[in-house]
Amino acid sequence: MPEFNAPLRDMRFVLHEVFDAPALWARLPALAETVDADTADAILEEAAKVTSQLIAPLNRSGDEEGAQWRDGQVSTPSGFQQAYATYIEGGWVGLAGNAEYGGMGMPKMLAVQVEEMLYGANSSFALYSALSSGACLALDAHASEALKNIYLPPMYEGRWAGSMCLTEAHAGTDLGLIRSRAEPQADGSYRISGSKIFITGGEQDLTENIIHLVLAKLPDAPAGPKGISLFVVPKVLVNPDGSLGAANAVSCGSLEHKMGIKASATCVMNFDGASGWLVGEANKGLAAMFTMMNYERLSIGIQGIGCAAASYQSAVAYARERVQSRAPSGAVAPEKAADPIIVHPDVRRMLLTMKAMTEGGRAFACYVGQQLDLAKYADEPAERNNAQALVALLTPVAKAFFTDSGLESCIHGQQVFGGHGYIREWGQEQLVRDVRIAQIYEGTNGIQALDLLGRKVLADNGQALRQFTAEIRRFADQPGAPFAGELFEAVQRLEDVSDWLQTRAADNRNEIGAASVEYLHLFGYLAYAWLWARMAQVAEQNLPEDPAFYGGKLATANFYMQRLLPRMASLEQSIRAGSESLFGLSAEQF
Amino acid sequence: MPEFNAPLRDMRFVLHEVFDAPALWARLPALAETVDADTADAILEEAAKVTSQLIAPLNRSGDEEGAQWRDGQVSTPSGFQQAYATYIEGGWVGLAGNAEYGGMGMPKMLAVQVEEMLYGANSSFALYSALSSGACLALDAHASEALKNIYLPPMYEGRWAGSMCLTEAHAGTDLGLIRSRAEPQADGSYRISGSKIFITGGEQDLTENIIHLVLAKLPDAPAGPKGISLFVVPKVLVNPDGSLGAANAVSCGSLEHKMGIKASATCVMNFDGASGWLVGEANKGLAAMFTMMNYERLSIGIQGIGCAAASYQSAVAYARERVQSRAPSGAVAPEKAADPIIVHPDVRRMLLTMKAMTEGGRAFACYVGQQLDLAKYADEPAERNNAQALVALLTPVAKAFFTDSGLESCIHGQQVFGGHGYIREWGQEQLVRDVRIAQIYEGTNGIQALDLLGRKVLADNGQALRQFTAEIRRFADQPGAPFAGELFEAVQRLEDVSDWLQTRAADNRNEIGAASVEYLHLFGYLAYAWLWARMAQVAEQNLPEDPAFYGGKLATANFYMQRLLPRMASLEQSIRAGSESLFGLSAEQF
Repeated sequence: MPEFNAPLRDMRFVLHEVFDAPALWARLPALAETVDADTADAILEEAAKVTSQLIAPLNRSGDEEGAQWRDGQVSTPSGFQQAYATYIEGGWVGLAGNAEYGGMGMPKMLAVQVEEMLYGANSSFALYSALSSGACLALDAHASEALKNIYLPPMYEGRWAGSMCLTEAHAGTDLGLIRSRAEPQADGSYRISGSKIFITGGEQDLTENIIHLVLAKLPDAPAGPKGISLFVVPKVLVNPDGSLGAANAVSCGSLEHKMGIKASATCVMNFDGASGWLVGEANKGLAAMFTMMNYERLSIGIQGIGCAAASYQSAVAYARERVQSRAPSGAVAPEKAADPIIVHPDVRRMLLTMKAMTEGGRAFACYVGQQLDLAKYADEPAERNNAQALVALLTPVAKAFFTDSGLESCIHGQQVFGGHGYIREWGQEQLVRDVRIAQIYEGTNGIQALDLLGRKVLADNGQALRQFTAEIRRFADQPGAPFAGELFEAVQRLEDVSDWLQTRAADNRNEIGAASVEYLHLFGYLAYAWLWARMAQVAEQNLPEDPAFYGGKLATANFYMQRLLPRMASLEQSIRAGSESLFGLSAEQF
Repeated sequence: MPEFNAPLRDMRFVLHEVFDAPALWARLPALAETVDADTADAILEEAAKVTSQLIAPLNRSGDEEGAQWRDGQVSTPSGFQQAYATYIEGGWVGLAGNAEYGGMGMPKMLAVQVEEMLYGANSSFALYSALSSGACLALDAHASEALKNIYLPPMYEGRWAGSMCLTEAHAGTDLGLIRSRAEPQADGSYRISGSKIFITGGEQDLTENIIHLVLAKLPDAPAGPKGISLFVVPKVLVNPDGSLGAANAVSCGSLEHKMGIKASATCVMNFDGASGWLVGEANKGLAAMFTMMNYERLSIGIQGIGCAAASYQSAVAYARERVQSRAPSGAVAPEKAADPIIVHPDVRRMLLTMKAMTEGGRAFACYVGQQLDLAKYADEPAERNNAQALVALLTPVAKAFFTDSGLESCIHGQQVFGGHGYIREWGQEQLVRDVRIAQIYEGTNGIQALDLLGRKVLADNGQALRQFTAEIRRFADQPGAPFAGELFEAVQRLEDVSDWLQTRAADNRNEIGAASVEYLHLFGYLAYAWLWARMAQVAEQNLPEDPAFYGGKLATANFYMQRLLPRMASLEQSIRAGSESLFGLSAEQF
């Protein structure tokens, strides 16, 4: 059975050395008291222990057993209840939560590392708390003080969980079509009715209560997305003293049978006149829900990195052990019947692709975490606003690029195992199945790409984009900056393509969707090039301290520039071919 | 539940219109009596019926139920026995088999279409007969007359099945390491001992007997791949009159638990002094087995096309029905709550990518089938030799490029379904799981790429390659040839890269494995460009007859050239970056 060990050394490299997070924390008053380098390290080490010893061992058994539905009750696989109980004792659900309501108030830069460990250890398990953390964020940002006092403390504690009830059978991407209804009651509450599908953790046996955040329409609501409101609907009603009261009219109708994340309960949820309370303003529910969605989007992106990191670990271990054929340049292990397959160039190509994309993603996630922390904690409004603009720009890239790369990496990891990669016992095929959902849920990657190009770049006239590319140019402008030539070329390419699309899309709205997925990838490859150059800069400086570790970083950066960054060339050509060739057929001609 | 309907119109287009197979058949004496356009059409129509009505309905239930092992006995899922009995009544196993021993003697160009239908309908079911057909081919080519008379007729009939026993736990890619032994007996037979893994159809409940082709070593055999012999080892011993005798010492120790193709029994097979008979010459078993492997490699490639075609059908049907959001250029179905998602450019991009790659692959498979038929049936030795050289060159491309593209297509097909693509009931996720194995078995795609670049191109000094590219140049040289500019550029690119690699690899053998996978893809994109140009030429000529059908082909050809062929640019850049960046890390630094 595969083991999982959090890549602690690599995480500290990113957090402390590349981003110098402790210096940032020291300068932000809200964080200076909360966290420093030692606290962060202690948290990372404890998270590594919990994920490798407690949660990872349930990954394969959870996949085999799956979440089970019986008469409306859902049971999680064996061991999940106990592990969850131990997990929440550590306070992990509230790690980055608001300290006023019982959260630990840790920075997002740190939390993203813990999230990666969780997804790498067991994506199904990770989802139960990921949804809670996201729901807390939406409540913290939009709910009344009264609601926050009721719900946040037990949710941060992990005694209660959260869920996110958006999708209906006929309304996924297009939430404007939802039919769930909310009838106002005399006491200020609402009666919620409707049926939701694909609700992660909508029902489970881990927590005393489940707090559903539900999108529904008020009777007089305008049509479409501007008529959607957000409600908090607990599974069990809460008495004024915070104790649990009667069951609410909420039930789980069934579980979906899925390709993967089988230990995560994906529920059909029925609301039959359930009591709910409005969160934020009427008809502005979608905006409030987006607080949660953006949080979840980064988190789900990190699922891509976590699964890829787990797959990489296993693949490297296997490639060092498995002997098969001789190295092309002559025997490397003449005492053995054949050489370990890590000597073969194509095996190295696969492993290095995984390593470069996973570590590039880890650095990108840390950067987005940094911007989230600045947006929340910086003193100067200008710094907060700049950071917020970057978060908006980079969130769709993080979600889609991490997960597209995550699938590619897990496919490579499986391929390194040859036939054994297809066999369940070895774990690699589960990672492929589990990571695949991350390209689909929380807004498909196609939707992320439309969000990036349509809203975040073109509708913004490229302002946030220029803010980001200026940062890359500043880096490359430093004397002796590594890979400056590659960066200037890549950044120019993205800017030129962006300008070209701005002009084209003005005449033809189809140009956006025709280019969007390839554009997002173009963006991603540039971002990773910049982050690899930053990592290489630090590795060069520190090389004498630990030549093996830092030399490995330099070699991986070099591989990325040589073998992966060239993917930009084809992406650009394909984008510049435009939308015409997509519309040469009628729907019937397909 | 998804339906499967064989793409008959598209298959006839390729077979009759693009390749004018009936004219070729008329010119080859061995085929002139056997097959003409009407016979071929009747066979295709019957195969379409059998696959859509008999075999496809067992695809999802077979996946849910899986093949089961109990006390050495294997049961296939419900319905398989009955369907298999009906299937063999049609004589399908012997479709392209040698008529002297009861085969139907049909050309491979036709057989590849039927194989595609089988894999598209139900990959697990298809494998039971695919292995038989391949085993027959190896026996027909290498076994003694006596063995052929015993085994071939019942195998072509489908009463007996075949299996291919190569892999051992420690020997997959590197067959030179196998440990199975063959002890010569006084009566001319051998006692075979050893354990084999990953044996498709090694045990099942469909046929009276299973004829294992087993690689093993004679006592005095030289070490490595030159000491391997091939044996035929029946599950049940055969009496001189052809009736079944005692059980042989062969048993199935267990089944693997796999990601997909769950209805296909993947067996651990134990040979405990089983009686076997030598096929071909001692110590030349690997060459004999390669007759079968090459056949299987094309077949497994076609699994990639079949699965992609099935995924495409479902995705198009879904994209026409599912309404979600409005077209970017304004409502297309204003009477509905939203537009069908096939109006969205990104959905079209995914569907067109699937269509272009699947139909390009279908044409390529037909071309390889044509060369196989010429190699076998042409009168002139020169024509046979030319065809044989092309078969050797193109087989690894077919195997790996069809299946890499097949996974990409099935992933797109799943993505088109959004969340529903991840749910088992819709069938798309099963296709992803089922097609994934095709990149791994029958020699991983990495091994195919090494075979292509190392053996078929570089070791051959590019002769076969030039033969192939000359054919493309001849096409593009015709006055008015469609996409001639694109073809000249692409063919030059492949030739230049090949020359460059020839020089580089002379100094450093690592250059081959460093470039091979990307080289195979470069080759594949060029080949599909040529085939799409050929299809476009025919479509242009016939456009007035059926503007919708031929217009669709032209539009797809155009999409391919505009949006997919540009992938060659990045592949070339990555190849030309060379092997250095793969060797910047020691095994410990990964």
